[in-house]
Amino acid sequence: MNIVIVGLGVIGGSFAMALNSVGYKDVYGVDIDEETLRKAKKLGIIKDGSSSGKEFFENADLIIMAIYPKLVIDFVERNKEYFKKGSIVTDTTGIKGMFIDKILEIMPDDVEFIFGHPMAGREKKGIDFATAQVFKNANYIITPISRNKEKNIQIIEKLAFEIGFKRVRRISPELHDEMIGFTSQLPHAMAVALINSDEEGRETGNFIGDSYRDLTRIANINEELWSELFLGNKNNLLKAINNFELQLDLIKKSIYENDKEGLMEFFKKSTSRREKLD
Amino acid sequence: MNIVIVGLGVIGGSFAMALNSVGYKDVYGVDIDEETLRKAKKLGIIKDGSSSGKEFFENADLIIMAIYPKLVIDFVERNKEYFKKGSIVTDTTGIKGMFIDKILEIMPDDVEFIFGHPMAGREKKGIDFATAQVFKNANYIITPISRNKEKNIQIIEKLAFEIGFKRVRRISPELHDEMIGFTSQLPHAMAVALINSDEEGRETGNFIGDSYRDLTRIANINEELWSELFLGNKNNLLKAINNFELQLDLIKKSIYENDKEGLMEFFKKSTSRREKLD
Repeated sequence: MNIVIVGLGVIGGSFAMALNSVGYKDVYGVDIDEETLRKAKKLGIIKDGSSSGKEFFENADLIIMAIYPKLVIDFVERNKEYFKKGSIVTDTTGIKGMFIDKILEIMPDDVEFIFGHPMAGREKKGIDFATAQVFKNANYIITPISRNKEKNIQIIEKLAFEIGFKRVRRISPELHDEMIGFTSQLPHAMAVALINSDEEGRETGNFIGDSYRDLTRIANINEELWSELFLGNKNNLLKAINNFELQLDLIKKSIYENDKEGLMEFFKKSTSRREKLD
Repeated sequence: MNIVIVGLGVIGGSFAMALNSVGYKDVYGVDIDEETLRKAKKLGIIKDGSSSGKEFFENADLIIMAIYPKLVIDFVERNKEYFKKGSIVTDTTGIKGMFIDKILEIMPDDVEFIFGHPMAGREKKGIDFATAQVFKNANYIITPISRNKEKNIQIIEKLAFEIGFKRVRRISPELHDEMIGFTSQLPHAMAVALINSDEEGRETGNFIGDSYRDLTRIANINEELWSELFLGNKNNLLKAINNFELQLDLIKKSIYENDKEGLMEFFKKSTSRREKLD
């Protein structure tokens, strides 16, 4: 299979590494950064690189888009005429609903877009932080649309398992966005709000343990990507934040009223829910 | 030095292990659970164990209290007559202000209480989860009071460094409680509220990545201990929660207004703050 990866950042670079490690050798890379292409070639994870990709697309069976949501739309618009008839395009985008609608408006009929979301990532960006390990045992989500052929969905599923993902689930774009608003976007909003709520001038570093460190790790955040993700899933995220604030306010009320029993009930509930995740 | 550890749970047990590993052999353990005492003796981390401790106190140079805040007060009340003149008592309690006031009311004049807080812990409780490693490179806080002798404070400081702590800071009980409300109690409240805000019946486990896992780890929480800690630091914690909610509401407002620039500013601020912590 001839594969082109568009964007060799931390996710695209990790795809290239993971594909290479399980034997895919006909992998080509597209990136606007010449240095990134040079590194990818030196690492031996791409056969060749290009800043535009046009020369690769006519032979590509699969194109993996690992760039920001808006850039995927621009890129498809500019390059769709070069895509091979019958080929598959997939993505790694963390939002689906609005994004899929926009892609479907511009996508040619003879190329199939299978929308995917590898639920793995790192705080850092760029190929220097790419690693095949990041996909190991992670979750992969596919949000099929009516025009997707079963055999093409299975190609993506098989590939996901091959490069290390543990679970591949098929769900609707709507459920995807609702769940991601809660499990991924809300935690990022919380982490940002936590560290931003620190008061200036305090020597906070002297007073932190693992809990603060863990809860703020994702406050180190790619502002361009995550502002797109937040705004592209606005309603689900606002709902998740509101539900969270309701629970936090219940805790606040119990503290205010010295309601030890009430607090203990919240803690027992959270402990039981957390234990089920492991 | 003759040391008695009161409470051989995850923290007291870790103290026994860490002290043993750096050569302290005259360490005695007090625990109401016979099985815990048996395990500690079998591990060779205590010389002898007792359910009351009375027989150990007359020779103890240092007593380390590793039990819940309210139990420390009860325990001192019931056992202070047995404490050796000139000996030191220290604690591992995560709140200081109200707690110190109560201890000072009952503490005899010829025994010195040095209030300490090893900023390390685990979600699990009990000696089975104790490990000397938990203290490695962690922060230790001492909150001196006017009657503390410099030489006694230094004994605790030295011991903390010996068993692996990286930084030992002396601060006022007031600053301690303010900072802990922010760096430790607020994250715990957030983690509990996050997982409790999940809607029943969703298959959330299929949609989580590292962020949700990291942010909910401490939602697995000892309800008895943490309800005491929350209520014992009420005003600081409420203030920290309110500051956090203000920041979260700013993010919410930006999402609501499709203010991409505003979101990016919050993310840049959080990224810069988080990078300084590493």
